[in-house]
Order: sequence, then C-alpha cells, then structure tokens
Amino acid sequence: MRFRMGKAPLYIGRFQPVHNGHIHAIKHILSKHDSIIIAIGSSLTSHEKDNPFTFGERLQMLRLAFEETGIDFGKCIITGVPDVPSMHFLWVKMVEAMSPPFEIVYTNQPFTKRLFAEAGYEVRPIPYLEREKYSGIEIRRRILCGEDWSPLVPVKVFEYIMSIQGVERIRSLASSDEVFK
Amino acid sequence: MRFRMGKAPLYIGRFQPVHNGHIHAIKHILSKHDSIIIAIGSSLTSHEKDNPFTFGERLQMLRLAFEETGIDFGKCIITGVPDVPSMHFLWVKMVEAMSPPFEIVYTNQPFTKRLFAEAGYEVRPIPYLEREKYSGIEIRRRILCGEDWSPLVPVKVFEYIMSIQGVERIRSLASSDEVFK
Amino acid sequence: MRFRMGKAPLYIGRFQPVHNGHIHAIKHILSKHDSIIIAIGSSLTSHEKDNPFTFGERLQMLRLAFEETGIDFGKCIITGVPDVPSMHFLWVKMVEAMSPPFEIVYTNQPFTKRLFAEAGYEVRPIPYLEREKYSGIEIRRRILCGEDWSPLVPVKVFEYIMSIQGVERIRSLASSDEVFK
Amino acid sequence: MRFRMGKAPLYIGRFQPVHNGHIHAIKHILSKHDSIIIAIGSSLTSHEKDNPFTFGERLQMLRLAFEETGIDFGKCIITGVPDVPSMHFLWVKMVEAMSPPFEIVYTNQPFTKRLFAEAGYEVRPIPYLEREKYSGIEIRRRILCGEDWSPLVPVKVFEYIMSIQGVERIRSLASSDEVFK
Amino acid sequence: MRFRMGKAPLYIGRFQPVHNGHIHAIKHILSKHDSIIIAIGSSLTSHEKDNPFTFGERLQMLRLAFEETGIDFGKCIITGVPDVPSMHFLWVKMVEAMSPPFEIVYTNQPFTKRLFAEAGYEVRPIPYLEREKYSGIEIRRRILCGEDWSPLVPVKVFEYIMSIQGVERIRSLASSDEVFK
Amino acid sequence: MRFRMGKAPLYIGRFQPVHNGHIHAIKHILSKHDSIIIAIGSSLTSHEKDNPFTFGERLQMLRLAFEETGIDFGKCIITGVPDVPSMHFLWVKMVEAMSPPFEIVYTNQPFTKRLFAEAGYEVRPIPYLEREKYSGIEIRRRILCGEDWSPLVPVKVFEYIMSIQGVERIRSLASSDEVFK
Repeated sequence: MRFRMGKAPLYIGRFQPVHNGHIHAIKHILSKHDSIIIAIGSSLTSHEKDNPFTFGERLQMLRLAFEETGIDFGKCIITGVPDVPSMHFLWVKMVEAMSPPFEIVYTNQPFTKRLFAEAGYEVRPIPYLEREKYSGIEIRRRILCGEDWSPLVPVKVFEYIMSIQGVERIRSLASSDEVFK
Repeated sequence: MRFRMGKAPLYIGRFQPVHNGHIHAIKHILSKHDSIIIAIGSSLTSHEKDNPFTFGERLQMLRLAFEETGIDFGKCIITGVPDVPSMHFLWVKMVEAMSPPFEIVYTNQPFTKRLFAEAGYEVRPIPYLEREKYSGIEIRRRILCGEDWSPLVPVKVFEYIMSIQGVERIRSLASSDEVFK
Repeated sequence: MRFRMGKAPLYIGRFQPVHNGHIHAIKHILSKHDSIIIAIGSSLTSHEKDNPFTFGERLQMLRLAFEETGIDFGKCIITGVPDVPSMHFLWVKMVEAMSPPFEIVYTNQPFTKRLFAEAGYEVRPIPYLEREKYSGIEIRRRILCGEDWSPLVPVKVFEYIMSIQGVERIRSLASSDEVFK
Repeated sequence: MRFRMGKAPLYIGRFQPVHNGHIHAIKHILSKHDSIIIAIGSSLTSHEKDNPFTFGERLQMLRLAFEETGIDFGKCIITGVPDVPSMHFLWVKMVEAMSPPFEIVYTNQPFTKRLFAEAGYEVRPIPYLEREKYSGIEIRRRILCGEDWSPLVPVKVFEYIMSIQGVERIRSLASSDEVFK
Repeated sequence: MRFRMGKAPLYIGRFQPVHNGHIHAIKHILSKHDSIIIAIGSSLTSHEKDNPFTFGERLQMLRLAFEETGIDFGKCIITGVPDVPSMHFLWVKMVEAMSPPFEIVYTNQPFTKRLFAEAGYEVRPIPYLEREKYSGIEIRRRILCGEDWSPLVPVKVFEYIMSIQGVERIRSLASSDEVFK
Repeated sequence: MRFRMGKAPLYIGRFQPVHNGHIHAIKHILSKHDSIIIAIGSSLTSHEKDNPFTFGERLQMLRLAFEETGIDFGKCIITGVPDVPSMHFLWVKMVEAMSPPFEIVYTNQPFTKRLFAEAGYEVRPIPYLEREKYSGIEIRRRILCGEDWSPLVPVKVFEYIMSIQGVERIRSLASSDEVFK
C-alpha cells in the first residue's frame, strides 16, 4: 500500500525554484511521517522577477528532484495554493480548501507560522540546511549575477531549468519594468 | 523507479464527485501510458450546486479511490486548473501553465476537444462506462432526490462524502438561491 | 452610554430593498440583545435584476426605516459583506473580517445556517412576518408587474425608492439582457 | 484632413457578430456627424455561447465590413469596454475612461439608455433595420439550427467567420456546459 | 430623533489604526454638521504591513473610540470602500455607491482632494492635530521599533489592539516578504 | 481603398503619454508596411504615478498626434490590451485575443521580445529616436520636476494634456501614497 489515509503534515513553500533546502526539508518530514502534503504557494503566479516559474514547471522540478534523490513520489501529495491579493485573512482558509485535511504545519516563515497558529494548527520548525545558501532568493541572485548556482539544486532540476531557458527568462524579467508593472 | 519523465497524457475533469467512470477512464489511459496527468478543472470553485466539493476534497477522493481500486498513486500527477471567467481563450494556456508538458489530451467534452485541437494537441476520446449512469450530474441528481447513489462511486469515496456531510451540503446548496448568486 | 462592547449577534440579509420583514426581524433581535450587527450581503453588487440597489442606497433605506419605526440607530452596527464569487468556502471568513466579533447568527436561510453552524456559531431562526409577502423577491415582482408594493415597506423607504427612480431602474434592468450578461 | 477633433457621438454594441443592422446604424450616424466612436462592449469576453468572438475578431469584422460597404475607416474611432461584473454602477465611468470625450450616445437598449441619461448624456435612438432579423441573437440561433444566416451579414464578414471556423465554435460552445460554467 | 436625513459630509481615511488625529477630525466635523459619513478606505485589505487590520477590527476601534471620547455613535454613518486596483478613475464612483448621498468631502490628501473636486464636490481641509505624530505611518513605525505608541490612540483602542495581538501581527507582517508578495 | 486585409505588424507600448519617439517608430513601421496595429498596453490602468492617463485619453493623444504629423489614421488599427496581474504567461494570448491577426512584432523591450519570440512570432527592433530623451519616464520626470517637456511631444498632445490638467494629475499622484496603494 502506497499511502495511509491518516492526516499528513503540510509543508508550504513557493519553490522558485526547487532547491536542495527543500529536498532536505521534505526528507526530514518524511523521516517523521508516512506521507507529506506539499503546498506550492503563489500557484497562479509566474514570469515575475521573484516568481519566475509556473506551477506546472515547479511540479515538474519536484518530480525530477524526487526521482534523483530517491524520495517516494507516492508519499507526496502535491497541491497548489493561489494568493488572495490583499485579503490575507482568507489565506489559511484557502490552504484548507486546496488540501486534504492536516493538523501539523511545517514552516519557518514568521507570518505563515502566526496565521496557522492563530487558526489552531500545530506549527513545527524545519531544521535549515545552510539557509543563506539554499534559498530561492540566493539562487535567483546568482542567476542574475552570472554566478554558479548549480550546486544549490538537484542536477536534474538544473538541467530542466536550462532546457526551458529559465536563466534567460529570469534575466529578461529583471530588465522589464516597462510593460508589466 | 516510480515514473518516467516522458510526456504523460492529460486527462481533465471536474470530479464533482469522483466516480467509477473516472476510475474506468484513468485505468484505460494507464493501460496505454506509463503515467497520467489528472487535471482537476474549476479548481477554486466549490460550495455551488454543480460544484459542491473543494479541490482538497476532490484530491482526497482521488487518493481514496486509487487506494481502493489499486491505481498506483505514484503514476498519477494531479494538478488543479482554475476557471478564467469569460476569457475562455486563455484556458488552454492556463492548463499548460498548471501542468508538466503534455502532447495528448483525453476528453469526450466537445468544447475542450475543440480548444485543445485548435492549439495543436492530439485529442483522444475515452471509452465511456455507461455515461448516463456514471456522471457527476446523475450522482448529484440522485443525492438531491434521495435515490441510491452508492453503486456509482468507490466505497471509500462514498464513506468519505458521508463523513464530511456532503449530502447535506448539496441539499442545502440547492435551496440557497437567496444569499449566493 | 449608547452601546456595550459585549458581542452583538449578527443578522445578515441583502436588503433589496429594505422591507417590513427586515424591520420585524431587527426589532425581534433587539428585544433579546442590547445591540445588533446588520450585515448587508452582496455589498458591492447593484444594478442587477435581483440586486437593484447599491450599498449606499440600502444603508440610506435602513436609516430611514429606523427613523420611521423608532429603532435606535445607535444600537445598530451596520457592515457590508461582498460576495466571493465561486469560492463560497471563504465566505464565513469574509463575514468575520468585515464585522466586529459575534457568536450568534440569526438567519432562516438554509445554506447560511449550514456554513455558520459548521464554523461553530450558534445559529438561531427568526420568526417570519408573513414570509410570502414580506420578501425582496415579492416586492421586486410587484414592481415589475405594476402591482401595489407600498404596504410592504416603511413609508420613508417607499418615498426614497420613488425619489431615486428605483421603479424605473428595476424595470429597465429586467429588459436589458443585451449589454450586461 | 481625416477627422475633426470635435466630439464624436458614441455608438455601443457587442457585435457578436457584426451584421447588417450595425452597418445600417453606423451609416445613419455618419450621415449626421463627421465621425463616430464605436464602443465594443464585453470586450474581454469571448468563447461563450452568447459572446463567441474575441475583441480582435470583432475588430477585424468591422474593418472587413467597412471595406465592403464603403464606410470610411478613418472616421471611425473604435474602442473596447470590458464588463464590470456585478458593479454596473461603474460602467458609464468605464466607458468614459475607454473613449475620447463624447456628448451624444446612440442606443436602443433600455438600460444603457437609462444609465447614460442619468449621467447627463443626450441619448438618441437608432432607426432599426428589421430588428427581429438583424440581431446577434437571431444570427447565433440560425447558426446553431443550421439555417441560412449569410444574408444577415456583409459577405466578407461571412467569409471571415467561416475561415476562423466560427460556426463550429458556436456549436461546440452550445454543447459544453460541463467544463465552463 | 437621532439623525437628520440632510446630506452629511464625507470623511475618508484608512484608520490603520484609529488614532487621536481621527477623533480630532471627527469632532471638528461634528462641530459643524449634524452627522458625518465615515468612509473606511481599502476596506477589504488587511494583514499587510501598511494595512494590518480588517474592516471589522477598524469598525470595532471606531466604536470603542467613540465610547471613550463621547462621540455620539448615532450621528456617525460608517461605510467601507474597497480599492479598485489600477482603475482609480472608478474610485469616486465607488465611494458614491457605498455611501448615502453627500456634497462635502473633508480630506487633506492631495489626490483624494483632486478626484472629488474634479467630480464636482466641495472639498474642505481638516485642521491637523500634530500630523507628524498622529498618523498611521508613525504609529506603525513605533510599533515596529518597539517605541511607545500608546499616547497616540484612545486607551480603549490601545487595549483592543493589544487584546487581538495586533503588535505581534504587525511585526510578523514586516518580516514576511517570502510567502505573500 | 483605405487598408489591406493582409496581416499588419504589431507595435506595442503604454503611451504614457504619446511622444515623438512613438511617432518616429510608427512612421518607421509604416515606411515598411501598408498598415500597423498599435496595441496600447495596460489599457485599463490609469491615475497611477507611472500610468497617469486613461485609454480614452491615450487614444485621443494618438489621434491628435496623427493629425499633426500627417500619419494616416485609416492605416492604424488601434487596440487596448489589459494587464493580466501575476499571470504573465497569459499575456501573449491576451494580445492575440485583442488584435487582428499579426505575424511580426516591433519592440525593443527585452521581456516582450522574449515572450513573443517564444510564441513563434518574428520580433523586430525599432530604431530609437534619442531614447534617453524620448521616453515616458523622462517626460513624467520633467513634469514632476517642473522642467520643460514640451519639445518631447507633438504640440497638440502638449495642449491636450494641459487642457485636461494632466500636469496637476501627475503631481497629485506623486504625493498620494496614502489612500491608494
């Protein structure tokens, strides 16, 4: 049997892009639970400087990373949660509507922690893997500056981003305040 | 290895609720392909007469149905696609953004077929399992009329809908033109 | 002192238009509580066949009706709650965000009752005042058919609706499927 | 000199599709004024049963019709006005924002007439060209029923609709209550 | 009789949070008029760094402040006006739709002044109460920096914000660029 | 005959406001093609610091500029394209829906270039007319700083902006972070 119907914990992130810190966190959570709900935040947002990739692309990155790092795809329930612009008080409710039931939330993000705690969830921290290195912000910065970012992500994720010209996308987004704002 | 990175076909539906016709279709597609992308349409819509269940609930139903009917969860990539109200010309693009890459679309719905064909996809029909019986419309009708709908869905889906008081929800929605319209 | 900071009960309606049934309900609730929160639903919607009046107009009608019927305006906390199209699971949360805290909800509407009960509120029924007569649907029907609707609303509300040409508005809305749909 | 900067009158319609009644109206208005502002309503809506064509397609139909019927394209200022769902009180303001300044509005539609009159515009009727025949509703009905609709539209508009498979689109839309609603 | 049906003046603000400057302004206006329409701007926005509180919370603050400072709640007509993102030309119309009729607008904000003046309203300035101190910006800054902000708001507003953990909310919002953006 | 039904090239900009650089570009394109599709971006946005003018005002500026500079209005197909907030992957599709068919896109903007190239269009650069001078950013900066901006725009555009008090609008927008944000 591939998964149990007990309540899996929720792990939420934006995965812009998927990196080794995410894999580290997912493995940590799967070492404590039978399965995991992975909620991809800002699911409808993409092609922005800080949100370059679509939900479909991030889903593909997760699958590639799982394959490479031996995470059992069958234990991972992946969902997407869109932003609720300006009405953030609706956000926890939105997560609840987009996910199977859960009771535990893994997050290090202060405001996410606060919102879920106020709503009665048990919130647990995630042991960081060198946070200043393994973060989407750092990876996007390195891509923009032409520095080496390949060690921060799984090999297959790196190859995938190259194959969809993700580097060029991020750079052209950084120079495009004109049309979209 | 759980799944291949080749392009899986797309199968799209609203799953309000998951029923035996869906399971039949998924098994048919998995008999021809290694994996399947299941796109849950109208993903942000729920608590409407014709769309009673949330994305999270439909996701849970799929998992329960897979467990009961022996479909390998690891072969199924599930995603959600929201409606784009009135701007339907954006819809195929929306599906593309929410999904890993695909080339084949399985659908019997005329307008879906048309939109994807126009966008250059190969569209294939799905052999129906007694369509007049196994359809969301028929199940919601039986629930409203108090007829027996249990044979139309997997046992675990039936039990789950009962446990979340889905029958009461559908009935109260049918009598609520006042507040929501 | 005009009001107490204890939790007032919530009474929700669309008030299209304000009629004697609403006044009856508000008096009933004020006979049991020191104050009342009146939530005007579909607050951003107007100029539709079933939602002809703006929030501002409905607010004005309430004030005029209170003045005429001796309801203490200072005991009434009025707020507006917009619809959350298709995402009805967010609606109770929306009401909570738009209102001072409350614990009791007065409503006869089945789905509203259900949503608030599921969210843990005490829901109480309102004794109807000849519901088939005192309802927005009946009043709008009489206006369309040219029947006498003046006995169903407070005199000042009738005069106000006449002064803003509300009858003409409702009739022209009924014949305008062309432009807006 | 191609046009004058005096205020042209506004003519508003949905043009689903452009037909001989529209051409008749535009010629009538141009017989009284030097130029005309043509506002295409529901500009962002398409691929719906009653709104099958995009703004771009309707713009193309207008150009083709002008070419065929000898209307001077240089005298026609064409703009698009999106719907403002449920907030119809904003609509006149929206038209004003999307158009050069105008003082006269040509329309036969009761609610449009009312809204512009209330906003202080001079509203003038348009002499109909056999309204029961020359209307978008009738043309879409004929297309659905397989009746001859070619005499109701300019030849080039007919050819254009055929070339973009407009007939198939309207028919598949009519049978697609499932996915989009 | 609690209020008159004459046209009350409009006073608009965001009230994030309610402070002594607002009370000063409301008292000033009520010294010149029998009643006042208080429009709470950005009514649907909350849980943002610069808009921390919900409409319901701001409404509650106003009531508490009125009770403390002796302002007659019955003379105050409170309404909420949502933002119209990017389409600011619709905003005055939105205010009109959300409010009883008014002719005078009290504001010191340059762009608000301009929009209402262009729409034909009489715009009057409000005598400031030490603006650099009594402003939402200053209060939120002090909260973030851990400085004493209690002298800037009514005592009951201070207590209420503490009771709903408003300080913690503002601080966690300031450190949460990750999830919401 | 005023225009040909061949596919005109697309030229996209925001025209905030129309300036001599735009006229230069349009003349360049019309020297190579019989007609031009001018797409006004962010069409629904106005009254923002960087997007001060409505679509209607920008349309009027284009007409005035064409009249002054001898561009044949009949050769110019003007359309508007709204933003698709955060879902930029839908934007090319949106342009396609709002425009007659085109194959060539003229743009110097890196991200626009990228999006259209990825979608299979031929993208061509536009020879700049002293870009650091003839740009909307520079003109809005000069207006804010009280420097002379009249040489950068056609005379009639200058007069039109003065007549609608555009300078005052831009300045009041720059000082209005309070209400709208």
